Amino acid sequence: MGCVLTYSFENDLFGSSKLPSLSVKKSVEKIELTGWIAGRCGDYIIIRTYDSMLKLRIGNGKAEQLAKLPLETLVRIYGVVSGDQLIVYMYDKLVEPVEERTIDYLEASEWDPVTYAKYSVWGVRHPRYRYTVMLQFHLLRYMREYLYKNKFIELLSPMISVSSDPDLRGARKLKTRFYGVEYELTSSVIMYKQLSVAVFKKIFYVARNIREEPVENIDTGRHLAEFTQLDLEYGLAGMDRVIEIAERMLKFVSKRIADRYNELITEKIGLRREPVVFKPPFPRITYDEAIKLASRLGYEVKWGHELSFEAEKALAEYFETPIWITNHPVVSRGFYYLPCEDDPRYNMDFNLILPEGYGEVIDGGSREYRYKQLVERIKKLDEPLEKYKWFLDLVKQGAIIPSSGWGLGLERLTRYLAGHRHIVYASMYPKPPGLTGTP
Amino acid sequence: MGCVLTYSFENDLFGSSKLPSLSVKKSVEKIELTGWIAGRCGDYIIIRTYDSMLKLRIGNGKAEQLAKLPLETLVRIYGVVSGDQLIVYMYDKLVEPVEERTIDYLEASEWDPVTYAKYSVWGVRHPRYRYTVMLQFHLLRYMREYLYKNKFIELLSPMISVSSDPDLRGARKLKTRFYGVEYELTSSVIMYKQLSVAVFKKIFYVARNIREEPVENIDTGRHLAEFTQLDLEYGLAGMDRVIEIAERMLKFVSKRIADRYNELITEKIGLRREPVVFKPPFPRITYDEAIKLASRLGYEVKWGHELSFEAEKALAEYFETPIWITNHPVVSRGFYYLPCEDDPRYNMDFNLILPEGYGEVIDGGSREYRYKQLVERIKKLDEPLEKYKWFLDLVKQGAIIPSSGWGLGLERLTRYLAGHRHIVYASMYPKPPGLTGTP
Repeated sequence: MGCVLTYSFENDLFGSSKLPSLSVKKSVEKIELTGWIAGRCGDYIIIRTYDSMLKLRIGNGKAEQLAKLPLETLVRIYGVVSGDQLIVYMYDKLVEPVEERTIDYLEASEWDPVTYAKYSVWGVRHPRYRYTVMLQFHLLRYMREYLYKNKFIELLSPMISVSSDPDLRGARKLKTRFYGVEYELTSSVIMYKQLSVAVFKKIFYVARNIREEPVENIDTGRHLAEFTQLDLEYGLAGMDRVIEIAERMLKFVSKRIADRYNELITEKIGLRREPVVFKPPFPRITYDEAIKLASRLGYEVKWGHELSFEAEKALAEYFETPIWITNHPVVSRGFYYLPCEDDPRYNMDFNLILPEGYGEVIDGGSREYRYKQLVERIKKLDEPLEKYKWFLDLVKQGAIIPSSGWGLGLERLTRYLAGHRHIVYASMYPKPPGLTGTP
Repeated sequence: MGCVLTYSFENDLFGSSKLPSLSVKKSVEKIELTGWIAGRCGDYIIIRTYDSMLKLRIGNGKAEQLAKLPLETLVRIYGVVSGDQLIVYMYDKLVEPVEERTIDYLEASEWDPVTYAKYSVWGVRHPRYRYTVMLQFHLLRYMREYLYKNKFIELLSPMISVSSDPDLRGARKLKTRFYGVEYELTSSVIMYKQLSVAVFKKIFYVARNIREEPVENIDTGRHLAEFTQLDLEYGLAGMDRVIEIAERMLKFVSKRIADRYNELITEKIGLRREPVVFKPPFPRITYDEAIKLASRLGYEVKWGHELSFEAEKALAEYFETPIWITNHPVVSRGFYYLPCEDDPRYNMDFNLILPEGYGEVIDGGSREYRYKQLVERIKKLDEPLEKYKWFLDLVKQGAIIPSSGWGLGLERLTRYLAGHRHIVYASMYPKPPGLTGTP
């Protein structure tokens, strides 16, 4: 137990770059440290501190005693470190577990996605996942920085509404009752974006969404039931404008992270040799071109259907960069897209597909704002008009306007930048499709 | 209709401080502007743009025609402005409402809280509320800035969990089903904070919470069913440490806003003559001292009960500043507070009470982390142990540690800084207790 871990003398990237003393490995150093007994491994004890994961050779009887404490005991240790040897003079127990944990989180890098999701409270103590949370934190921080600079106002996402996003492509919405009335949990803030953009020209939400994805979607590696969307909208703007914002933002944040946190990606998470730096503009192809090309590459897609994950992957490999797929068939999407003027069988919409099989990370388009057309679209999609009455009544009176925008899947982007094989590793307390009872 | 509004030639605080031309009022200026027909008032037309609310005298036949368009028509206007007179050469209709709205949002400053909550989609177009949203945006932005600088990591709040915060003082939690299993909607992230702070020393969430508050709480002016909490936690820290962080943060953000957005508060929202700048440290009194003092001021509080709003108000007026009330009786609070060592009838906890009757804005304390004590507390509070099994099983194995933290009600702070008489005006799409069917 505890022998899998390859990390030692890790220092935290956030804040102080050195431990009180342990960064000096060669000399004898007095230490006073607070940490958790994370594991034992032969002659070694593994101590987790807030800043590091230390693998130290047991150097005296007191250290031996320390190593025998129940795993996850929180201790304050007074002693010396000489080379990798720990000599303990004294220790205080700050928290003593009632029973020893049965989960060895030092092995968490070997956990399959379901195991990780079940035991993420422990798993996130593993440096790889701890640092993934930090990567995500910095990522979102820099996205905010970019958008604030570009004068976007951040609004706050509702948890529930009378009816939420209708375009779930196979997923189901969660319901609740609020003072006796049925409400839906937010599956997307699309309607709130449309309403808000008639007040503030440039807005975004960092919206938490929840959807009951089909259980089998856990195998795609891309779906969480609960996920975070950076949801942006720009009043009176066209598609090109918001595509450009997405491209510039991705370039900005990826470059920032590569410049400042190269080590976080390449060493601490350790799944990529080089951090990804986006180099937009990305190629754009239409849906029709995409299915033709996919067919040439050996993947047949029936017109009007979604590209399979394999087809998307083949396309992204063909281009070797993220690609925009634009103008999906109207029949394949929700009611809120604007059809193309010259060919109303297609939407003014776009998806950004990441390379290496990471798949769709952005979904956006220009929005339908005309009352009659909205009603027709809702009817055609067999959605009950009554459910959207609250929204349609507002639309009827001119509450929404032409706009364009997109939603970016934060955990998907985190997963790609970190290089994780499954999206559960890119969420602190993940809720993948079909799994219940986890935090 | 449209005659109540007193704003004109308002410019936006965010971004460009001047309109294309209308800031020059005296000369004749060519204009090309995009805006909504917001109202008519005698010889005047009121046009709302993204940046301003313009009250212009109708100067020619074309302008007259414009003024007759259905309210909320979105138009692009080409013409000249001479003094306050609008002469229109040409206009394009960008969005035409199917029917004219019946709500006059130019009167929104006169709306009572329930009316505002019902029609907030329109009401937020009124400058007072539009600028309140901007105030809140800046407020949260600066709070983030302060906390990032002080090395707090921001984590993402879950929408649902197996069980959420038990300490709701009379409110009820919302339920949902997630893949067939009953879940609760987040009423507070307290348990997530406790779990996360054993991984990252300094964390915060900007958490959306929802609770079915008693319907009559709409009258307190302080309660929203759905609200936003800045929820901070600090591992291995005591109460004094996190109180100090709250005080410094409040000072920082209020000063920033007063310095940079004085006009936003004093003129655009227009309810305060001077922006509030917090001057900590704030006085601290214990709960026992508070009820004694309240009694002297004429408000009797039964030991173990909450201070009435009137008593809180009287205390805050007595001190003329925000005050900390500390050490509430154990019986009056949830199970997650640590009792005082020297007198376990009291918690190591604190509330920050705002002056002028605005009431509690921060609720915090040191956390109980010991398994046995937690179980006893839960039993004593007649909560079913089974519901917290997921959490207690983790605690048993040492997953939580001593920590302190607090939650700050964002809409409450916004309300206070803006000077609104009710909290609904401090939320973009408010959900006050008991009101359903609103966005």
